[in-house]
Amino acid sequence: MTRVDGRVERGNRTRGLVLRRTVDIASVEGLEALTVGRLATELELSKSGVFALFGSKQELQLATVREAGRIFADRVVRPAARTPAGVARVWRLCELWLEYSRVRVFPGGCFFYGAMAEFDARTGPVHDAVVRAQRDWSAHVEHTIDEARAAGELRAGTDVPQLAFELVALLETANALSVLHGEETPYGRARTGIADRLRGAAADGVPLPQFP
Amino acid sequence: MTRVDGRVERGNRTRGLVLRRTVDIASVEGLEALTVGRLATELELSKSGVFALFGSKQELQLATVREAGRIFADRVVRPAARTPAGVARVWRLCELWLEYSRVRVFPGGCFFYGAMAEFDARTGPVHDAVVRAQRDWSAHVEHTIDEARAAGELRAGTDVPQLAFELVALLETANALSVLHGEETPYGRARTGIADRLRGAAADGVPLPQFP
Repeated sequence: MTRVDGRVERGNRTRGLVLRRTVDIASVEGLEALTVGRLATELELSKSGVFALFGSKQELQLATVREAGRIFADRVVRPAARTPAGVARVWRLCELWLEYSRVRVFPGGCFFYGAMAEFDARTGPVHDAVVRAQRDWSAHVEHTIDEARAAGELRAGTDVPQLAFELVALLETANALSVLHGEETPYGRARTGIADRLRGAAADGVPLPQFP
Repeated sequence: MTRVDGRVERGNRTRGLVLRRTVDIASVEGLEALTVGRLATELELSKSGVFALFGSKQELQLATVREAGRIFADRVVRPAARTPAGVARVWRLCELWLEYSRVRVFPGGCFFYGAMAEFDARTGPVHDAVVRAQRDWSAHVEHTIDEARAAGELRAGTDVPQLAFELVALLETANALSVLHGEETPYGRARTGIADRLRGAAADGVPLPQFP
């Protein structure tokens, strides 16, 4: 390895270290709580070192949103793809999402819930990144439902975007109320609601997953 | 009016003026954005004047949460009570909530959605006030559904807390997605979902409101 490669390697390691911390801070206190000075102190790095890695507070916020998206994909999106397309995959995707929230992959609950509420009424690149992340997730839920439709597993006339909206609503609200009240009850309610929606949408004769 | 009464009167007027501004700021930027200095500058008051009225940043935040609750009750809770108890009142409560969000009574959308996400994973009196506001609202939705049950308008065996959870989920998500994407579509989806839930829960023969 050349000296330059070594430096790049070290830089990437430090970046990873910083981002592992920033996603946790942002999930509890918000993306605005990410300041270069604070991270330097907490991670015992120099301020100029953190600056050299990210350039600005905004770049740090954007990198944090990307890192959270990577973790989310690893915990929810990718493992759900191992279940065959159909109602079972939609259910699995929802179960993995609830588990991702319940075990607090991010200490403040779903990373994107907090980021959405923090940046929804603002403008700028961080707002745009959060909007994109939410659109991608909604589109992924719709796509997964649409696969079930294409596999002949949904009743004719099922309104796919409507069903996606209702599933996302149950997931998000379970996360929000669980974090706010420190309770697990909302996850059970979300599971019950999602199972009801999927039971209602499934075509006759489709073998249903083990619903609650 | 005595001189003391006059001072109290003026103080109350200024308090009202400050709070009308703080609920708007907090709904867009969060309760943490409420600093005594900023309000003094924006409202052309002295810092010591704002301090004299609220005592501390935390008191200012708590007074802002209370003011938002007052406005919410005026726009949603109180007018719904004019519809007779039953499925129609549940529907009216949801319609008024969607309207409260849609017309942006607070410029950042539902005040409590933002406050919940900002304070959910923290501790302290502001967190407690936000928790209380959310519990009161959930309890009010449950109570309104329970009145419909008591009036014989719901199927036997309707799970009241489950139905309340699902209605709240549709409302909150409509607000969140509308504010984030600057779209009205989510309100239509929430109305469709709420009408479906109420149609499913209503006892046979109960005259249903004009659903979409």
